[in-house]
Amino acid sequence: MIERIDNYIRDNQDQFVESLTALLRIASISTDKSAAAEMHEAASWVQQRLVACGFAAEIVETAGHPAVLGDSGPADGDGPTVLVYGHYDVQPVGDESLWHTPPFEATLRNGSIYARGAADDKGQVLTHIFAAEAWMKTAGKMPVRVKYLIEGEEEVGSANLGALIESRRKQLACDYVVLSDTAKFNSRTPAITYGTKGMVYKELNLTGPKQDLHSGSFGGTIANPGNVLANIVAGLKDHDQRVTIPGFYDNVRAISPEEQVAMDGLPFDEQVYLAMTGSPALDGEAGFSTLARRWVRPTLDVNGLFGGFMGEGASTIIPACMGAKVSMRIVPDQDPEKISAAFDSAVRALTPEGVGLEIKTHATAAAYVCPIDSPGIKAAAEAVEGGYGARPALIREGGTLPILPLFRQVLGANSIMMGFCEPDCNAHGPNEFFSLADLTNGTRSVARFLDRLAPR
Amino acid sequence: MIERIDNYIRDNQDQFVESLTALLRIASISTDKSAAAEMHEAASWVQQRLVACGFAAEIVETAGHPAVLGDSGPADGDGPTVLVYGHYDVQPVGDESLWHTPPFEATLRNGSIYARGAADDKGQVLTHIFAAEAWMKTAGKMPVRVKYLIEGEEEVGSANLGALIESRRKQLACDYVVLSDTAKFNSRTPAITYGTKGMVYKELNLTGPKQDLHSGSFGGTIANPGNVLANIVAGLKDHDQRVTIPGFYDNVRAISPEEQVAMDGLPFDEQVYLAMTGSPALDGEAGFSTLARRWVRPTLDVNGLFGGFMGEGASTIIPACMGAKVSMRIVPDQDPEKISAAFDSAVRALTPEGVGLEIKTHATAAAYVCPIDSPGIKAAAEAVEGGYGARPALIREGGTLPILPLFRQVLGANSIMMGFCEPDCNAHGPNEFFSLADLTNGTRSVARFLDRLAPR
Repeated sequence: MIERIDNYIRDNQDQFVESLTALLRIASISTDKSAAAEMHEAASWVQQRLVACGFAAEIVETAGHPAVLGDSGPADGDGPTVLVYGHYDVQPVGDESLWHTPPFEATLRNGSIYARGAADDKGQVLTHIFAAEAWMKTAGKMPVRVKYLIEGEEEVGSANLGALIESRRKQLACDYVVLSDTAKFNSRTPAITYGTKGMVYKELNLTGPKQDLHSGSFGGTIANPGNVLANIVAGLKDHDQRVTIPGFYDNVRAISPEEQVAMDGLPFDEQVYLAMTGSPALDGEAGFSTLARRWVRPTLDVNGLFGGFMGEGASTIIPACMGAKVSMRIVPDQDPEKISAAFDSAVRALTPEGVGLEIKTHATAAAYVCPIDSPGIKAAAEAVEGGYGARPALIREGGTLPILPLFRQVLGANSIMMGFCEPDCNAHGPNEFFSLADLTNGTRSVARFLDRLAPR
Repeated sequence: MIERIDNYIRDNQDQFVESLTALLRIASISTDKSAAAEMHEAASWVQQRLVACGFAAEIVETAGHPAVLGDSGPADGDGPTVLVYGHYDVQPVGDESLWHTPPFEATLRNGSIYARGAADDKGQVLTHIFAAEAWMKTAGKMPVRVKYLIEGEEEVGSANLGALIESRRKQLACDYVVLSDTAKFNSRTPAITYGTKGMVYKELNLTGPKQDLHSGSFGGTIANPGNVLANIVAGLKDHDQRVTIPGFYDNVRAISPEEQVAMDGLPFDEQVYLAMTGSPALDGEAGFSTLARRWVRPTLDVNGLFGGFMGEGASTIIPACMGAKVSMRIVPDQDPEKISAAFDSAVRALTPEGVGLEIKTHATAAAYVCPIDSPGIKAAAEAVEGGYGARPALIREGGTLPILPLFRQVLGANSIMMGFCEPDCNAHGPNEFFSLADLTNGTRSVARFLDRLAPR
């Protein structure tokens, strides 16, 4: 059967690319409050594609953007039920002038499709739908029951997904959650990811004088929100790049000896990694390797700074207000709410009386890690090896999937992450892409994963 | 004669306001490279106005924006020659939504005219032209010879004015330079300003990864230009708000006992000043009074920060680049070029190898101070007392007039600053204004100043 499925996948590549292109042309940017129509259009597209597979599928409204739920229905035998999780929302495009082709045109070049959301996560979501289509069109049925939960708020912290899962607990009941929203380890090595970082995302807004003031007439006599903002942000880390927020590291779980061995065995080339970033040099918390910093150590990053005169040339003002976006990636067993509160306290302690301070919390999410030796992880690793013809690496990931701890808590299911996109796929940056080879091999891997789970 | 002149000024107020309105409606923003037409239009307006007074006047092109030169021609007797200096260029408008009426509409309300450039410097320049007009229309001649130099690059550092003065040294020969580009001491007290701060204006541009990267996948492993920028800016000052740049204070001239006495005698109310700024608290270099910080101590201020995700909501990126506008106001006898170089060295020393750094210098200008007891200062103080019916304060100013040290060096003339605008006139901020009372009293003061200089 798997050969017939592989043939279907091979013979339908053009159709798959056309379908992915159609979905990528919908600008479903979840941070953009004016994009409600696009969000519904993308949700509807996914729902109809599931219906076309012969599955039940519905659009479920939430307090934010809608989610899509699907279900293949019961399968033969007593195999496990799989819940495919993914998201149809995408990041903002950033500076559009940096894109070589428009972010929502979906352009094919050099064997890859370039568009915002190509890798994160529309292309990877579709490997699961295309694999299901291949099974249905070839075998006429699914090897195991597969359910789908494709949400529209992943890029804004999945604020309404917890309530949705709670309210649909029975409908979503499953043995494994499987998702593809992570990357391969490198071009040649696909990856099964068994842990992710959590996140606490903050915005600071400082107010000083009631309006921009002449820096000559008033300089040196009142607090300048720009200087204060720099002091606050700088004060959050020390010279060793350790976060100075009191209690920040209290619950950081040490890496296990097994994980350390696995990590040390990976073919990780720091120079290749550095070249991928384009940075002049690696940098990070003292005392840890680059991989440890990526996967098991919490981080604190400025995502944006803004305020005062930002135009061409010179304007001599003391800015009335100044803002920063600052986010932390946290690890097991840091508690996002405790870290959020500790951050706020630390920032307040760093703020002089000469400025006003407002702190917004845009997102909080826990980290996740699952046992490296679970049967689901094993089946996934074998399936990906078959789909790619290359053994996958078992890795962790610095990105955040807020839904994973929730799945475990509400559905009692561990999550398996099969990563098909390139590590330098530019998710969140300009010129995001997903290669057609990964679209095919990912679809082949998913098809095999369902096959392996079926009762023999 | 001075009564007839006062009457002319009183009777022509409407015409003066109409003329000022016409000039204010020209958006002569010198930082804006697309405003070349408006710059020429404003220069031409000033030139024609001088011609209308019966003076010779020409537009002189420079490597940047043009300047206007005028000359009343020789006067009777052996009185001194006065050079009126001013500028027709204005600051950018900043956030236009903060303006209650459009910045280039010039709206009259509550006895003031609101527009970008109303106080800084178009309204104040016109007091000199209106006073000359009053003399010419009333007496038919000027009491002393008056020359005019109205430039278009004051707000961008007067980069081409030095060359112009050098090349027109004979044409501009004078005994005093007089200008009105400073403020009154408070609403009731006009001011003669005898010193200004200099300026060194810098822009820092940091580059990290070749493009915005996913802060989860890459966080903690490369230098984040946003965190680095905060570290650099924070590193330029210590906890006492003293600038940490090595050698920064080496040549700072201590305040003289005479100046200290004069400063201590001024009716300065810190709470009124604080309320004017709208800041929650005063702040500044430890060990100095608010007035000392404003007038005699050098300062370092952030004028703007920019880069990364600056939109609504959250985007989880490590920014590819990040920038800051940072300016210093320097005092006698700090050398702007030495301070500029010391700043660059200090910033480089604070920059880790994980980011690229580019430093732009937008402006350097020396500070200026002139003897408090010169005959010109005395004549000006008496003239302003007559024009306003209130004794002026003798003060220094935190703002920068790069041209003053040049006038002294090239023309051998000291500069007298008669300040007619309100201290909270919002120069450089939104809702800049100039009151009609100050327009009238300023014009009366200038007319008297010329009278006092005439030979008896």
